[in-house]
Amino acid sequence: MQVGIVGLGRMGGNMAARWRDRGHEVLGYSRTSPDRDAGSLEELVGKLTGPRVVWLMLPSGEPTRQALRQLAELLSPGDVIVEGGNSRFSDDTEHALMLAGHGIGYVDCGVSGGVWGRENGYAVMCGGEDEHVQRVWPLLESLAPDEDGLCHAGPVGAGHYSKMVHNGIEYGMMQALAEGYELLEAGEYVPDVPKVLASWRHGTVVRSWLLDLLVRALEEDPGLATLSGHVDDSGEGRWTVEEAVRLSVSAPAMTAALFARFASRKPDADQLKALAAMRRQFGGHAVHATAAGGA
Amino acid sequence: MQVGIVGLGRMGGNMAARWRDRGHEVLGYSRTSPDRDAGSLEELVGKLTGPRVVWLMLPSGEPTRQALRQLAELLSPGDVIVEGGNSRFSDDTEHALMLAGHGIGYVDCGVSGGVWGRENGYAVMCGGEDEHVQRVWPLLESLAPDEDGLCHAGPVGAGHYSKMVHNGIEYGMMQALAEGYELLEAGEYVPDVPKVLASWRHGTVVRSWLLDLLVRALEEDPGLATLSGHVDDSGEGRWTVEEAVRLSVSAPAMTAALFARFASRKPDADQLKALAAMRRQFGGHAVHATAAGGA
Amino acid sequence: MQVGIVGLGRMGGNMAARWRDRGHEVLGYSRTSPDRDAGSLEELVGKLTGPRVVWLMLPSGEPTRQALRQLAELLSPGDVIVEGGNSRFSDDTEHALMLAGHGIGYVDCGVSGGVWGRENGYAVMCGGEDEHVQRVWPLLESLAPDEDGLCHAGPVGAGHYSKMVHNGIEYGMMQALAEGYELLEAGEYVPDVPKVLASWRHGTVVRSWLLDLLVRALEEDPGLATLSGHVDDSGEGRWTVEEAVRLSVSAPAMTAALFARFASRKPDADQLKALAAMRRQFGGHAVHATAAGGA
Amino acid sequence: MQVGIVGLGRMGGNMAARWRDRGHEVLGYSRTSPDRDAGSLEELVGKLTGPRVVWLMLPSGEPTRQALRQLAELLSPGDVIVEGGNSRFSDDTEHALMLAGHGIGYVDCGVSGGVWGRENGYAVMCGGEDEHVQRVWPLLESLAPDEDGLCHAGPVGAGHYSKMVHNGIEYGMMQALAEGYELLEAGEYVPDVPKVLASWRHGTVVRSWLLDLLVRALEEDPGLATLSGHVDDSGEGRWTVEEAVRLSVSAPAMTAALFARFASRKPDADQLKALAAMRRQFGGHAVHATAAGGA
Repeated sequence: MQVGIVGLGRMGGNMAARWRDRGHEVLGYSRTSPDRDAGSLEELVGKLTGPRVVWLMLPSGEPTRQALRQLAELLSPGDVIVEGGNSRFSDDTEHALMLAGHGIGYVDCGVSGGVWGRENGYAVMCGGEDEHVQRVWPLLESLAPDEDGLCHAGPVGAGHYSKMVHNGIEYGMMQALAEGYELLEAGEYVPDVPKVLASWRHGTVVRSWLLDLLVRALEEDPGLATLSGHVDDSGEGRWTVEEAVRLSVSAPAMTAALFARFASRKPDADQLKALAAMRRQFGGHAVHATAAGGA
Repeated sequence: MQVGIVGLGRMGGNMAARWRDRGHEVLGYSRTSPDRDAGSLEELVGKLTGPRVVWLMLPSGEPTRQALRQLAELLSPGDVIVEGGNSRFSDDTEHALMLAGHGIGYVDCGVSGGVWGRENGYAVMCGGEDEHVQRVWPLLESLAPDEDGLCHAGPVGAGHYSKMVHNGIEYGMMQALAEGYELLEAGEYVPDVPKVLASWRHGTVVRSWLLDLLVRALEEDPGLATLSGHVDDSGEGRWTVEEAVRLSVSAPAMTAALFARFASRKPDADQLKALAAMRRQFGGHAVHATAAGGA
Repeated sequence: MQVGIVGLGRMGGNMAARWRDRGHEVLGYSRTSPDRDAGSLEELVGKLTGPRVVWLMLPSGEPTRQALRQLAELLSPGDVIVEGGNSRFSDDTEHALMLAGHGIGYVDCGVSGGVWGRENGYAVMCGGEDEHVQRVWPLLESLAPDEDGLCHAGPVGAGHYSKMVHNGIEYGMMQALAEGYELLEAGEYVPDVPKVLASWRHGTVVRSWLLDLLVRALEEDPGLATLSGHVDDSGEGRWTVEEAVRLSVSAPAMTAALFARFASRKPDADQLKALAAMRRQFGGHAVHATAAGGA
Repeated sequence: MQVGIVGLGRMGGNMAARWRDRGHEVLGYSRTSPDRDAGSLEELVGKLTGPRVVWLMLPSGEPTRQALRQLAELLSPGDVIVEGGNSRFSDDTEHALMLAGHGIGYVDCGVSGGVWGRENGYAVMCGGEDEHVQRVWPLLESLAPDEDGLCHAGPVGAGHYSKMVHNGIEYGMMQALAEGYELLEAGEYVPDVPKVLASWRHGTVVRSWLLDLLVRALEEDPGLATLSGHVDDSGEGRWTVEEAVRLSVSAPAMTAALFARFASRKPDADQLKALAAMRRQFGGHAVHATAAGGA
């Protein structure tokens, strides 16, 4: 089928390529990509045959919101927009309402798979009304590795909500693997840690794609020598913790993972200085010495 | 090859069966199993041809220690014992030393795979001297799903150390999945949570055997209605936290997982009462009401 | 000076009494209190002499917002409103802006001290423009235990922001004390835990008002036998965690405290059932039995 | 009364001075201090009049154990040793048993108060048999700020057990204060954080000695500019977590505090590199860039 895609970054570009490989007609627009098929949103919309499908793949927040506002003016009743980027699920309801006022359908779609997705397929979870989801189903099917990796999760918002929780789990799993890696390296027993990790890919309880990635990373970069301890986070881990707080759900592993990343970026954080300062006060001694009495 | 196995519980029994399927001669002893081939450790040892291999599959701690002491007297120099149970890695050094005094070799072996292992194979990580590990290698190979799932991790202790860290990671991953499951159920967006989880098995970053198990559990027991919120732990999660403390390794996700289990078993824990008591004090009101001033 | 107070609940009523004790003229309004001096907001405003000071002591969120909207219509330019309840700091900016449109000043004021405040004084931290804060300063001084317990923390929002962080710290400290109490009770060494806690009030590093409260609670209710393990939370602990997430500040102790309360209210939480379910799957055994292989 | 003190470091020296101020006859021995009254343990014991009281104030572990072994040979039945250092409570039982074989009494004594103790008094919690504790009671009384700050907590081990839990609570409280300090600094609302903290000393729920110390630290070293983010720990925080694990007590706040210190000392910890490595793998992009798909 025909689709117009807005945003041709790493994810958008790979998805467009995967669709083309599977016989879809893809017209792309991006402000900067040399691979674009249209020089403006207007031109893109003009080139599409109605009823149109436009797929957004932009940074969440203002860029996505702006594009939606423009498209609301350019598109016609009966067209459908898929928000395939990382919008917060709570924004989706707002987007859908605004577009419904123009007779335009809205599907929110969480996509997982990273750079491996073009080849192996992307996991796809989407939210929206049946009618709109069915319209874009052939596109979703072509993204997914197989029919089972594709899920209409619920009404508008359900796609990004599911993706957000997925990422929260991902944070927790990564943290668990990372702690285990450090424990293996720190202990006196295991001289060749990558060998043990590689063996875990077969038959253990912890076998998982993230373990596969860690094993591959250690093969490519022994001792992870090229890396610093600075770990970024994208927004979805934060949203998961916010949701846990809103819903009164205890989420200590996910939160520990998020906070470990925060801490990794502030080696001289105010809180650490405050701890050292209190120790100096009650210990009455140079900081870094052992505290007597206090601890 | 020939092996005598001590302990024919769920794990031991399945492993014996897997060995027999693969052509090994297995003689089993257990105090209680009707499937045993010997009525005593003495009889078992008497039936084995030297140099003997005896595989222990007993509860860790005293039962394992007792059997090792008895076997030290019954076996001969050149024999090898494999401790395939869940001994703490720090006990292994002690065991190996004691047996070395009798000329008996010692291999510690961590085995993962649960009840699925008999069919799918067990992940096997072992520790010990090359000479002893090579002696028992054919047994290890027959347990493993394939050669890659088998790992000589290091000197005595390395097998159980690796297995312990594996289990710590498992705790963290399970906790992350469990938190995600509750967030999906608690939110307003996803009407059919098992459907979303099932789709995650294909192409997502969190695809893993534990996810597979959670999906299967939800298929077999919709809403997990047959289960209470009481979650046990075996010793290895505790040892991992102890090691983290000993080695000055921050392990918040693993520890959160362990503490969540502790808390699950004490709905009226003293610490909770203490919190309620302090709130009552500063709020000056019936507990369960909203605190004014304090929180 | 003269003040109109809206909201005569536990906190509002005690504060009004403390002001009266110190010579202020206090006119109170509440929908339900028999102690009210006016039957409506209109009547209250009518009884006050301009330029007026109105102090709000209502539940945060909609009740406070509604009262502010009504007062915006009833009051005159030059009047000042103090929001002394538990508004989220981020609401204060909005409130102040709305009132500024009517020429009305706004001061946000965090008040701590619980039921002991009437007698011992309240800690008071406020935010707002100097001009407005100075107008209400005599009221703040009369609330505070002494001049040092009174703080103009910054612009609008600073009072509630400070109070929110104060409450986050309170959560963390309470959790630390609660954990310690349980460890003393759980260990085999200390037959009379309240005696040890009482002795800590003198000379230790942990001496604190919260320790005092715990000691008093144990005196009044030995073994905390009248209490269940259900622990509520008011909103400020949640906001603190949200702020930590927004500001990329690692806050594991505060968050642990919040999550412990969440968990205390869900003995059969979905996440616990999910853990039990996964254990049952890989262990292949009745739940509550020891897992073989997995953990 | 007369006491021989072994170990004249910061704590031991101050305690000796406090005893002398209160009229006790103190004979000190230390390997290195110029203030010592005896050149060897033998000489110290020789100078004491029986039945003797010897107070140990040495680093825990081997130094304390060695001194106890030597004293067991030098002292006589009826003498009493007080272990006033930071021995693990589980060592105390062993020490007491060994000394009981020589007819020597043993009291374990946890002492809190830091460098302020000499002037303000030390909190003292001790364990041991009534007979032995009564023998040394005058010394304990002279250490304590008043009679209420002195506690016979239980049998041998109870003193150090109580002190250990005290320190665990201290860790948690410090962490809560440190997180709060960073949140105040990180937010946009509070221009003068030390002013707010100082005001909290009066009338708030979080008033405490640790808050006093933080306020003083900020007065002496504005912005804590002289400090790095490296925070040490003494052994007792670790023991508390080990005890929590042993006793199945959830202790997330204490553990978070310990792990924050561990992490503060490893800015490029293996676990952080592992996280960065996994992100690089699934994101397929330079580390520090935003992950697409994963997080």
